[in-house]
Amino acid sequence: MPSPLKFTILGHDCESQARLGRIETPHGNFDTPAFMPVGTRAAVKGLTPQQVKSTGAQIVLANAYHLMLRPGEELIAQLGGLHRFMGWDGPILTDSGGYQAFSMADINSVDDDGVTFKSIIDGSSVHLSPERSIQVQNALGADIIMAFDDCPPSVDPSNARRHPNSQVVGGADGNEPDHAERLRVAHERTVRWLERGKAAHQRPDDQALFGIVQGGTDLDLRQGAVEAICNIDLPGYAIGGVAVGEGPALIRQVVEFTAPLLPGEKPRYLMGVGYEHDLVTAVRAGIDMFDCVLPTRNGRNALAFTRHGRLHLRNAQYRADEGTIDPACGCLTCAGGFSRAYLRYLFAAKEMLGPILVSVHNIHHFQCLMLDIRRAIREDSWPWLGQSWPVLDAAQPSDPAELIDSHPDV
Amino acid sequence: MPSPLKFTILGHDCESQARLGRIETPHGNFDTPAFMPVGTRAAVKGLTPQQVKSTGAQIVLANAYHLMLRPGEELIAQLGGLHRFMGWDGPILTDSGGYQAFSMADINSVDDDGVTFKSIIDGSSVHLSPERSIQVQNALGADIIMAFDDCPPSVDPSNARRHPNSQVVGGADGNEPDHAERLRVAHERTVRWLERGKAAHQRPDDQALFGIVQGGTDLDLRQGAVEAICNIDLPGYAIGGVAVGEGPALIRQVVEFTAPLLPGEKPRYLMGVGYEHDLVTAVRAGIDMFDCVLPTRNGRNALAFTRHGRLHLRNAQYRADEGTIDPACGCLTCAGGFSRAYLRYLFAAKEMLGPILVSVHNIHHFQCLMLDIRRAIREDSWPWLGQSWPVLDAAQPSDPAELIDSHPDV
Repeated sequence: MPSPLKFTILGHDCESQARLGRIETPHGNFDTPAFMPVGTRAAVKGLTPQQVKSTGAQIVLANAYHLMLRPGEELIAQLGGLHRFMGWDGPILTDSGGYQAFSMADINSVDDDGVTFKSIIDGSSVHLSPERSIQVQNALGADIIMAFDDCPPSVDPSNARRHPNSQVVGGADGNEPDHAERLRVAHERTVRWLERGKAAHQRPDDQALFGIVQGGTDLDLRQGAVEAICNIDLPGYAIGGVAVGEGPALIRQVVEFTAPLLPGEKPRYLMGVGYEHDLVTAVRAGIDMFDCVLPTRNGRNALAFTRHGRLHLRNAQYRADEGTIDPACGCLTCAGGFSRAYLRYLFAAKEMLGPILVSVHNIHHFQCLMLDIRRAIREDSWPWLGQSWPVLDAAQPSDPAELIDSHPDV
Repeated sequence: MPSPLKFTILGHDCESQARLGRIETPHGNFDTPAFMPVGTRAAVKGLTPQQVKSTGAQIVLANAYHLMLRPGEELIAQLGGLHRFMGWDGPILTDSGGYQAFSMADINSVDDDGVTFKSIIDGSSVHLSPERSIQVQNALGADIIMAFDDCPPSVDPSNARRHPNSQVVGGADGNEPDHAERLRVAHERTVRWLERGKAAHQRPDDQALFGIVQGGTDLDLRQGAVEAICNIDLPGYAIGGVAVGEGPALIRQVVEFTAPLLPGEKPRYLMGVGYEHDLVTAVRAGIDMFDCVLPTRNGRNALAFTRHGRLHLRNAQYRADEGTIDPACGCLTCAGGFSRAYLRYLFAAKEMLGPILVSVHNIHHFQCLMLDIRRAIREDSWPWLGQSWPVLDAAQPSDPAELIDSHPDV
């Protein structure tokens, strides 16, 4: 039986847990550490697959929840699968829809069987269970698929956004359990759901199922989750429940604690993270894969990432700025010579081309960072990385207030 | 003094007024008959210049009225001119803003000096005169610029849309003159304005000013306009006031009457037209240049043009259609393998990529038609053109009700 995924570690860092690798899938290879642009609804918003490829991205992410609701996984399967449907012939990872299902305001019930909620498309009642999520992802046909997990909110209510899932735990008596209890329930449920998902998986030969380690910011829970989840033999493991409202210090603590506990010979995927500094921290903790909506969502809102910090392109200071976003950048937008003044104007005029050009640049920015991170691991040149990327300096904090948040599309 | 434009006629058709040519400009050449995609606000909506170029387009159109209001022509001049601003290094034509100024609902006054109206951006009072329009276009720096003309409504009120300009002629006594009188005033004003515009033109060495022949559907007026306008020596002439609400039969009558009257050695530009059949008719009447928003505006609304007719991609019949828009088409969208089902889905999901992909296809469609029209002239193979383009058959009428209209952006 051929393995759906081959992970080769090409090098280890001397001074950290970081490793350089390559992942082979039925639709081609990608280098790790890797950053996956998000194409939630089978499209990276506003970009052709050709433009996505031009950024250096080798793998993209899509979302089973959204595609199940529209156009439906059966239609995509009938049309030859997700790769052909969206015109992306490289590797694809689909998220299970757990986060989205639990983030819906209109949840009708949550129990061990799964989640029942109202469709955001037509209000109809939709049931999502571990088996159903895998069935959907089998139909979509991504190279890497994710287990359906229970994703609870952050432990720090003062820092956390409102998270509907904190209120729908569904104790039999209708009472809301305290947060620690909620995390414990989520953890145990996630383990049971993973076993059920693995059993339901119909395409283990060409789709690699990853398990997800939950546990919020409780390190004991994280440790228990790693043990329970990694006890189930799978081609890769992810850390979930991070970047759901807790601050960067807690993200760092959880990742630095959890990543090294995951099996060293399997890919480690940190879901939904994050800013440049977060990525470097996580790579050094041993993470191999990332996804985040930051480059595209902020790109659509006129915020451009650069090695030297972020540019709010709507600002008046760019009105007559003839420079490109980053003079050293080789993306289609910067190499094409589009000035900050033109980009600012496009946003003012509500021309679609503004979001497109800044999204291309931002994805390219994150791909360049990964390229340089891989070089830093290969050449043991972290000081060079720090010099090349001033934004990594602590003086440029990951300030959530400044940016549109990094949450996946819900 | 170098000429800003060189028009070389490379061949004449045997059986019609059609001619094959090449126009050389300071920013490169384009083949005629030519179709110019519309980038009203210094962007062909949703497309990078690279994508526009991929369609085969060699020249694009932008609009002085919109760019004067935002971001302002001075800023564009300061940033190196329109070519550099929008990242299009090929030829550009700017429309004068006459049509837009007269189509604004909030006109305060119209007289021989010009038009005063409220800005759609901030409500401020804006004055546009022949001199001011040329000044704006000199600052933008397009290769071909248009005279500021008075564009009255169609003669057929039953067929015409409401046109604000029909009500703002401004007789001294406040009475509304009859329509023939309105056309006469527009004609005479357009001639006077052209003389003033030519006198105000500061860059005759690198920007070719075209005069515009008005006259509605009154052929006597058209004849008088041709004589008066062409009496002013210019590098090219346009037919304006067509496709402003009158039907295809009247368009045809006006074009077939007017085009042959224009100087044979100068480019002839038919403004704002049109559908495939209209283009062929006009080419055979001797027209060399076209612009129209049809491919992009309809592309954004899920309507795809093909040689065999139009596809309304929102229709349920395409739900599971795995074919591309046109199997014989080589555009980025069709060659990229994007299915009708995927495109339909993108519009349903309100993903920007839908409008982008269909706009690319539609512009490519019109460029292919022009390519084949040029071949038909070169090889005297009109029957071949008709066979290759079934859509040209009368069975596929230019039905305005079916499509979003062809009016320029106002």
